[in-house]
Amino acid sequence: MAEHDGTTTAPRRGRPGYDRDQVLAVAVRVFNEQGYDATSVADLTSTLGLTKSALYHHFESKSAILELALNDALDALEAVVDEATARHPLASDRLRAIVRGAVHVLTAKLPSVTLLLRVRGNGAVETAALLRRRAFDQRVTAIVAEAQQEGLIRDDVDAAVATRLIFGMINSVVEWYRPGGAVDPAELGEDILRVSLDGLQSRSQ
Amino acid sequence: MAEHDGTTTAPRRGRPGYDRDQVLAVAVRVFNEQGYDATSVADLTSTLGLTKSALYHHFESKSAILELALNDALDALEAVVDEATARHPLASDRLRAIVRGAVHVLTAKLPSVTLLLRVRGNGAVETAALLRRRAFDQRVTAIVAEAQQEGLIRDDVDAAVATRLIFGMINSVVEWYRPGGAVDPAELGEDILRVSLDGLQSRSQ
Repeated sequence: MAEHDGTTTAPRRGRPGYDRDQVLAVAVRVFNEQGYDATSVADLTSTLGLTKSALYHHFESKSAILELALNDALDALEAVVDEATARHPLASDRLRAIVRGAVHVLTAKLPSVTLLLRVRGNGAVETAALLRRRAFDQRVTAIVAEAQQEGLIRDDVDAAVATRLIFGMINSVVEWYRPGGAVDPAELGEDILRVSLDGLQSRSQ
Repeated sequence: MAEHDGTTTAPRRGRPGYDRDQVLAVAVRVFNEQGYDATSVADLTSTLGLTKSALYHHFESKSAILELALNDALDALEAVVDEATARHPLASDRLRAIVRGAVHVLTAKLPSVTLLLRVRGNGAVETAALLRRRAFDQRVTAIVAEAQQEGLIRDDVDAAVATRLIFGMINSVVEWYRPGGAVDPAELGEDILRVSLDGLQSRSQ
């Protein structure tokens, strides 16, 4: 990440080291650290070492940065469901692919997914993101319900509650997972499948 | 909750309707709504319709209120592990009792548990609470590891990761559970046991 570390020369207008993606990455980090609402454009420019006009060269507003980050996370999560739907005729196979894929998106796009999970619906950009999250939950709930009808997923847990619990487990990973740490992201996806679908209890019981 | 609703008469000094527990409940709600750090003593007194001296009659400081709320949640969670340990010789039975008991504490003490889950370690009170949370996690991790040695819990998931995932699922409930809503809290505890220990996949597979 091209963070301005304060040890280099003074900030320059239109600092050539920053492209749009790098500005986005730094802004998302600041949003996650201090909260989107509590972050001013001046906070962003001082962290980046950019002038306001240089920042506005990349993005027209603070909410445009938020929108891009949230859409990045949502596009990736929706692509997981699209791909699972295209590939797997059995709903229980689709569910497995979605759990694995969602964990992959979360670990690969940790900052933007973290931002998405903190959205509370303040303003038009957050409201639109919440609507897309809700539509995503409904698609997954329908797949869980279909897998219950197939008889491959137990039907004594309500499909909407089961979906919330599985994604509660997946989303909780943002609290402790750190890229490059001791936990391998692919293994984490398998662990979450083992716990949520197969169950922690030994099958021999 | 003895919330000052603004439609009654003007706030009175030492308003007799408030006892210490009611002041605590309102303060915790305000902390959860706007963040502990962002809440001033003036925010609390204006929400409560109390003078500062009336508030200080109940609590010596804002952090004393935080400490009491966090300890309330932590005491209850630790009591669940203590009781499970006293009652169940088998670690896998202890684990089931802990999952059920933790969901009960979360739904019964939703505001103080919500506050606990948002603690990031700013200041002495939050640091002490984080240490107690960590000790709690370690006790549960040891119980999961013991249940793995008993052969009743699968050992292909690391005990610490399994504990984090189970509590990730449990704790995610604060995001959507509302007392008196459609989801029965006792049933929710059973659902979380079904998903995390038994697994969502039908056992007939």
